[in-house]
Amino acid sequence: MINTLFIPELREMLADQNLKELSGFCVALHPSRTAMFMEGLEDDEVWRVLEHTDSENVADIFSYFSRDRQLDLIQTDRKQQAADLVRHLPSDDRVDLLQGIDDDVRTTLLDLLPVEDRRDILRLSQYPEGTAGAVMTTEIAMLMENLSVRQAVDEIGRQSEHYETIYYLYIVDEEERLQGLVSARQLLLRMKAPDTKLADIMETDLVTCLVMEDQEEVAEKVARLDLLAIPVIDSSRRLAGIITHDDIIDVFREEATEDAHRSAAMEPLAESYLRTSLLTLSWKRGVWLAILFFCALLTAFALERYERITEEIKWLILFIPLIISSGGNSGSQSATLIITALSRDHIKLTDWASVIRRELVMGLLLGFGLAVLGLLASWCLVPAQQQANNWMSILVVPITLVLVVISGTLSGSVLPLIFERIGWDPAIMSNPFVAGIVDILGIVIYMTVAVTLVGISQ
Amino acid sequence: MINTLFIPELREMLADQNLKELSGFCVALHPSRTAMFMEGLEDDEVWRVLEHTDSENVADIFSYFSRDRQLDLIQTDRKQQAADLVRHLPSDDRVDLLQGIDDDVRTTLLDLLPVEDRRDILRLSQYPEGTAGAVMTTEIAMLMENLSVRQAVDEIGRQSEHYETIYYLYIVDEEERLQGLVSARQLLLRMKAPDTKLADIMETDLVTCLVMEDQEEVAEKVARLDLLAIPVIDSSRRLAGIITHDDIIDVFREEATEDAHRSAAMEPLAESYLRTSLLTLSWKRGVWLAILFFCALLTAFALERYERITEEIKWLILFIPLIISSGGNSGSQSATLIITALSRDHIKLTDWASVIRRELVMGLLLGFGLAVLGLLASWCLVPAQQQANNWMSILVVPITLVLVVISGTLSGSVLPLIFERIGWDPAIMSNPFVAGIVDILGIVIYMTVAVTLVGISQ
Repeated sequence: MINTLFIPELREMLADQNLKELSGFCVALHPSRTAMFMEGLEDDEVWRVLEHTDSENVADIFSYFSRDRQLDLIQTDRKQQAADLVRHLPSDDRVDLLQGIDDDVRTTLLDLLPVEDRRDILRLSQYPEGTAGAVMTTEIAMLMENLSVRQAVDEIGRQSEHYETIYYLYIVDEEERLQGLVSARQLLLRMKAPDTKLADIMETDLVTCLVMEDQEEVAEKVARLDLLAIPVIDSSRRLAGIITHDDIIDVFREEATEDAHRSAAMEPLAESYLRTSLLTLSWKRGVWLAILFFCALLTAFALERYERITEEIKWLILFIPLIISSGGNSGSQSATLIITALSRDHIKLTDWASVIRRELVMGLLLGFGLAVLGLLASWCLVPAQQQANNWMSILVVPITLVLVVISGTLSGSVLPLIFERIGWDPAIMSNPFVAGIVDILGIVIYMTVAVTLVGISQ
Repeated sequence: MINTLFIPELREMLADQNLKELSGFCVALHPSRTAMFMEGLEDDEVWRVLEHTDSENVADIFSYFSRDRQLDLIQTDRKQQAADLVRHLPSDDRVDLLQGIDDDVRTTLLDLLPVEDRRDILRLSQYPEGTAGAVMTTEIAMLMENLSVRQAVDEIGRQSEHYETIYYLYIVDEEERLQGLVSARQLLLRMKAPDTKLADIMETDLVTCLVMEDQEEVAEKVARLDLLAIPVIDSSRRLAGIITHDDIIDVFREEATEDAHRSAAMEPLAESYLRTSLLTLSWKRGVWLAILFFCALLTAFALERYERITEEIKWLILFIPLIISSGGNSGSQSATLIITALSRDHIKLTDWASVIRRELVMGLLLGFGLAVLGLLASWCLVPAQQQANNWMSILVVPITLVLVVISGTLSGSVLPLIFERIGWDPAIMSNPFVAGIVDILGIVIYMTVAVTLVGISQ
């Protein structure tokens, strides 16, 4: 829902060139609300409003627009205004933003930036997507170990607008190698002894991560230890940046979306849905649909093998979709349960025996439940004459359902465990895949049960 | 992987009753590592080690065990030790923990606690699961507005071990109504003018949430505004607690797991996989399997209606699983894309027209891709004689695939949008549901195309 409350007023202020009211609007409210009230304006109108406040505030307001809107705004004709904005954005956010825009716009913007900002951006862009280096920020409160508490407080006072957080202060030696950490909390508590050296009060047993470490592992670490931020170091222990709690939340949300996409058999999207081109989208979806198509083709060959049975016992055909979807659904449930439990450390590989035991019991319970429904369905749909000829016909579907649901729960639990064991992402063993495998098993089980019970030879 | 490095040494220390080494072990390392090295011990051994350090440290170490281990540990025979521990846990964590254990153990533990802790626990337990009240902590740095900066720093120094965070200090009036906020950062920067009143420097335009607000909405708010913590107020604006960034991460991870479970057609689990009883699990899975079974039963009735066609054109049967799974898979992809995009605010309801347009194009592209594969499959599997009799037989499967994939992408996108519109959770419109609907559509489309192209009347 776009808030259009202020739109007429803002347009009037722009038309009147009412400088006082425009600059008042930019500073009177919390930046998140200023951004919200401008959502309904055209991109160029937003820039014309933002002309009337300083770059720091522009960057604050800008950070509350949606990413898509940010990308649109940054690709404006007002290059100088955009470059000023980029200069004042947090170092991790601006790299991320610049990676989402066209190459030529990016080059133009980079050229308009002071050399040190440009270097910082290029240095951060070199870390591959998904690493700690790619999400870290370089605006760190970095202090020398020989400073006293008082000097540290003074230094923070001078520098604070350049830091993304001052809740953790990182203590380094002359070569910027990380030595320890002092929290703002400790600094506040030590104000009574202002001459204490930072080196004497710093925490030295630090949890750190490497620039090339996988962002998901870093996020797990921060979440497990409830950290506000984690320092990122390079191979020579030099402090390269920090990752703060808000970036960790973003990592978790991104990974959750990626897992959801994988579990529906798609390559995860790099951009948001509406920003992804139809060509990219059809590629990311098409490859997996084609692979699943070939899996499903095996069911056609299986059915061809059993052609004589389905010709003789025609009613078997009616239940084919019902049986394979029951197997697929129970398999998807198991796969999702195991994949989410693995990713949240609720189960370990060493629990495999109890997982399989549980899923076997689940398969039996659920299978028998569906078998009762299947018995009623058979009673309705199996022709009366066939039921009279051989009373066992009515048992084919129920017995098949028990076996198919068990094979679903077992495949759904064993396959993700195997993937985890060999070091692949268990989420690849996605629901449609488990379903595809269970489809083929389902056909084979169904036909075998039919032949055994109703006694027709192939 | 359980770290067993220290296990023999720890057991030896316990056997020797080596008090000095045991208490040394408890304090020498970071609590997370102490916990890690004890993972391989029996529950009672852990308690025997923890006897040798103070309750604060026990609570720290305990917080790094997995939740399942915590639940096991708390249900010990050493009731007094457990009660001491509970007393020192953060107020939100202990409520959560106590809700996971047996009623009689909980009653015993509560009886062993001082009256004020017991009251705090009972008060927090009254908020329903999933509300802000249920995740908030009550250890807040709450300061009166008439304090000066110096008095505030002194107060924090005295009280700091009772607070979960001091990065935000909440300013209240005499009736504990929230008036404003001072960050530790501002306090540090104001140390030069220690007589300034908090009321003069506090931020008054605060983002807050209500005790009964949905935890997911609160988490969205915190993530959007990159907050460290959000104050929770009751209906009379009294400060009831705060929710900190680490709890927000937990909320997001919990919600992601719940969404994954819903999208595989299951009721989300309240406890971890191994902790959930098989009876609960079979209920949460069975209900949805049964509902999906009834959906799938419709395909059986549909196939019965088309019995004459499948009897005359036998090869049609071979492709039934292939066609319904192609429709189901493309539908799952669309549903997952739309559900994740809605939950991350990447699309809004007002984008419905462009979403549908995109999914229509996607359906055409993907459908034609699969149609090419379907043509090859038909060429292999449709009997040569039939192909010779009527060359159009070979087109039945490809044309069906195009139409089925389009109906998959359209159902997968339209149904979640409709659910969002009427205010239901779009995740209920889960993948198996979309697949179930597309199954029936698939059968009807397949048979209709077959009749039209190969020209056999019902």
